[in-house]
Amino acid sequence: MSTIKVHGSPISNATMRALVALYEKQLEFEFVPTDMRNGEHKKEPFLSLNPFGQVPALEDGDLKLFESRAITKYIAYEYADKGTELLSKDSKKMAVTTVWLEVEAHHFDQPSSKLAFELAFKPMFGMTTDPAVVEENEAKLAGVLDVYEKRLSGSKYLAAECFTLADLHHIPNIFYLMNTQSKKLFESRPHVNAWVADITARPAWSKVVAMLPPKP
Amino acid sequence: MSTIKVHGSPISNATMRALVALYEKQLEFEFVPTDMRNGEHKKEPFLSLNPFGQVPALEDGDLKLFESRAITKYIAYEYADKGTELLSKDSKKMAVTTVWLEVEAHHFDQPSSKLAFELAFKPMFGMTTDPAVVEENEAKLAGVLDVYEKRLSGSKYLAAECFTLADLHHIPNIFYLMNTQSKKLFESRPHVNAWVADITARPAWSKVVAMLPPKP
Repeated sequence: MSTIKVHGSPISNATMRALVALYEKQLEFEFVPTDMRNGEHKKEPFLSLNPFGQVPALEDGDLKLFESRAITKYIAYEYADKGTELLSKDSKKMAVTTVWLEVEAHHFDQPSSKLAFELAFKPMFGMTTDPAVVEENEAKLAGVLDVYEKRLSGSKYLAAECFTLADLHHIPNIFYLMNTQSKKLFESRPHVNAWVADITARPAWSKVVAMLPPKP
Repeated sequence: MSTIKVHGSPISNATMRALVALYEKQLEFEFVPTDMRNGEHKKEPFLSLNPFGQVPALEDGDLKLFESRAITKYIAYEYADKGTELLSKDSKKMAVTTVWLEVEAHHFDQPSSKLAFELAFKPMFGMTTDPAVVEENEAKLAGVLDVYEKRLSGSKYLAAECFTLADLHHIPNIFYLMNTQSKKLFESRPHVNAWVADITARPAWSKVVAMLPPKP
């Protein structure tokens, strides 16, 4: 029996972040679906796993964690010798990976999450997209991707010549945006475009996509 | 001669975050002021240190880093055996610290930074505070601090019984907000209030405050 349990929803970009890290590490785990439509994440017992009432949450034996990026960092560090190496053991290489992990968290995440909500999730739930929010966040994301284009012209991946956790954290939001008008922001930048194709073609990611419910 | 250089401005909350980590670790370093009023951070050579044009940046020998939280994590990890232990070497304790580092980054930082901008920085630069932004972000921050109050009723610090990097990351924004109307959000929650008093009384923080320019 696996001792790792992930609580969440396969359509949640944050849950996907935890899942793809587990698959990269080739770890066995039990997926416990959280019924978000019925607000299960806002009630006990879920609130005892995450007092902020957000998916995902992870249990590994007695250890209980929340915040998707804390979960992936724990998986990468605790299971360093399994599957894909996601964090270098060299402290200076790890420091550079940490820079790009912070760039994802503080530059990429906000505009890309807002665009995914406006252009992918709102249509999915019958809500109306706000074009002003889209315009503002496409402009912000374009500025971020200009920096990425320059970086990726000299480095195959964001932090190093090999795939790291910093690249992995980007995959779920990119996946959603590649089915929206915002894909032009990625496709118009050749190095960003090649990087997107590379990181979304990873077998671990295909396993996450396979967990999505069939389209209606 | 010190090999560590910090580029930034002493009034920048992000620069302060890097400085307080260096002081906690009792490391010698050279502070290189960045003339932000003249936009030095948006031009070369600063852009070669940080392509996003934001302070702080750090040099440690050949290593160049940006993003304040990447800098503090590098300092905590690379200089683990100096000064205050900011990250436990035990992977499960570190995982819990990482959860609260992510909480700071994804829950606390945004409302507290927006409030610091509206209530501390705008008056400093002769700009007009937007009451709607204040109201919205005080409501968001109150929700976050409700979770902190519960957490701190059972744990002296956010991640553990001892001070960690997760607490440290909060200090600069709290420092600015304690001189604004938003201090009521902290003072009205007894465990949060005691935690604020504790973490802002640390000698390392006093050294950062001593670097601020005299009030006009």
